[in-house]
Amino acid sequence: MKAEQEFVLGIDIGGTFTKLGLIDGSGSILDSRSFGTQAKLPFPLFLRKLEKEISHLKSKLKNGQQILAVGVGAPNANFNTGQMEYPPNFKWGDFVPIASSIKQILEVPLSITNDANAAALGELQFGMAKGMKDFVVLTLGTGLGSGIVSHGTLITGANGMAGELGHVNVFTNGRQCNCGLKGCLETYVSVTGIKRTVFELIAEMNIDSLLKKKSFEELTGKEVSEAAHMGDIIALEAFEFTGKILGSKMADTAAHLDPEAFILSGGLSQAGDILLNPIVKSMEENLFKAYKNKIKVFISSSPSSHAILGPAALAWQKIGIDQ
Amino acid sequence: MKAEQEFVLGIDIGGTFTKLGLIDGSGSILDSRSFGTQAKLPFPLFLRKLEKEISHLKSKLKNGQQILAVGVGAPNANFNTGQMEYPPNFKWGDFVPIASSIKQILEVPLSITNDANAAALGELQFGMAKGMKDFVVLTLGTGLGSGIVSHGTLITGANGMAGELGHVNVFTNGRQCNCGLKGCLETYVSVTGIKRTVFELIAEMNIDSLLKKKSFEELTGKEVSEAAHMGDIIALEAFEFTGKILGSKMADTAAHLDPEAFILSGGLSQAGDILLNPIVKSMEENLFKAYKNKIKVFISSSPSSHAILGPAALAWQKIGIDQ
Repeated sequence: MKAEQEFVLGIDIGGTFTKLGLIDGSGSILDSRSFGTQAKLPFPLFLRKLEKEISHLKSKLKNGQQILAVGVGAPNANFNTGQMEYPPNFKWGDFVPIASSIKQILEVPLSITNDANAAALGELQFGMAKGMKDFVVLTLGTGLGSGIVSHGTLITGANGMAGELGHVNVFTNGRQCNCGLKGCLETYVSVTGIKRTVFELIAEMNIDSLLKKKSFEELTGKEVSEAAHMGDIIALEAFEFTGKILGSKMADTAAHLDPEAFILSGGLSQAGDILLNPIVKSMEENLFKAYKNKIKVFISSSPSSHAILGPAALAWQKIGIDQ
Repeated sequence: MKAEQEFVLGIDIGGTFTKLGLIDGSGSILDSRSFGTQAKLPFPLFLRKLEKEISHLKSKLKNGQQILAVGVGAPNANFNTGQMEYPPNFKWGDFVPIASSIKQILEVPLSITNDANAAALGELQFGMAKGMKDFVVLTLGTGLGSGIVSHGTLITGANGMAGELGHVNVFTNGRQCNCGLKGCLETYVSVTGIKRTVFELIAEMNIDSLLKKKSFEELTGKEVSEAAHMGDIIALEAFEFTGKILGSKMADTAAHLDPEAFILSGGLSQAGDILLNPIVKSMEENLFKAYKNKIKVFISSSPSSHAILGPAALAWQKIGIDQ
């Protein structure tokens, strides 16, 4: 069987959009799809939409082409049990049987991990972390996810749930998190987090801002970023605050892992230098001496449409085909 | 050659005492020594004492018995370079050439890592972590050290400096740390840290205490512990505060690594339940749901005289003899 006949199905379940696509062993995408996750509606509705989209993708396969495995990245997904566990930004229950549900749609080997762990594998196999042994991926989307690679291997933990940096504490009795705790990192550093910061700053600062025209529900991360690039003080201040917090927590993560690099991805990371500069400044200020000026911080070059590459890397790993 | 003829030399360099001993592959100690490190005096003085103690140990070897390798645990030691780097509690310079200096005393394979990494290997090979794949050792001595094992392997990091949890941040602009940062975990959670807390509480609380008889330099961790066991309010409060801070930071570490267990060792850990109870309470309160009630917290059963077992495990690992 020729390699160009073999694909995996990569599925990235995000808080807002779900993306899926057929990917070959070199990371080339045969076809991909995207649909609204609607995380606040019941899980069976999601499954029906997913099944329809998978059927559509399968219809694109030519004679002899086949899907060898499925890889799924999803928030708070447990590598060992195949479930999403207590996903704070979803109303799908405390334990969501992702793996078993998708296996009923497509009977091939399936592997699942949290979306950021999958992103880390994607960077390792197809992306910016090729050749690296120790790095951390942070996905700044609706929430904040993380994937940690050490000695070239994804850290999965004793219960399959390693890499939940969105829930390290920033401030005691800080902002309420969907997870039930207070002051979690993702309540400050994520698309939702920066929106909360914008609203806090609007309340605190007596200053004109483009962002005052928007309701909380209307406001998008992209709009905060655009306002900042136009010089809007509130938006710029929000990025400063966000970067400062993330940088200090990255210094703490470095004290655990001594990584070669942090790779930032997800919607908020697309803001570029207005986010990256305060992050690096704050990280360096807070780093223990032995790590200073040694750790690279990148924004992932994978466009967000390539969120399926991580799950695809997970699927290829599942069937033991290292490219 | 018979196994009982083969030993490694384990050396544990602590902020106060240095311990060394000859250990066989099963963890049995043939002989051991201890001397004051005198970390504030020049490094060559330390080396002269070490050389003398090594000669003494070598004189205990019978005909045919030999030392195959040396393992060294030292604060802020770099696994890759063989140096202690910026050790905040030592006045031996920014880069202390431990490995090369000891090799001049004893010409056998040598491996070095930070004292807590060594302790983690000791727990894995000879101690409480036998059979575990994912755990974290915290050494609560003059400072706070840490060793992280994931997938059964010590995490060493991109530059050989992983596991410096003593320098994660607790409070912005918190207590001055010897490392130059402010608010580091070891300024609160260590023997020195709890002494600082005692003095802060003496200043804040208007209450009798056994500890008011002691100067800062006189006071020992053991005395704080003894006072707490006698019901001294200041001492009890100091353990509550210390445990609360450590527990919250262990919850953050869990969000990185999803460990099966934390193992506490070092002088302060000998306080037992008065420290362990507030740690576990605080950790559970701050844990992300997926980890709650799953993580064990132990106090290491290795008496402190066995601090040389970690370096010994490192030495055995160096020569590839897994017991």
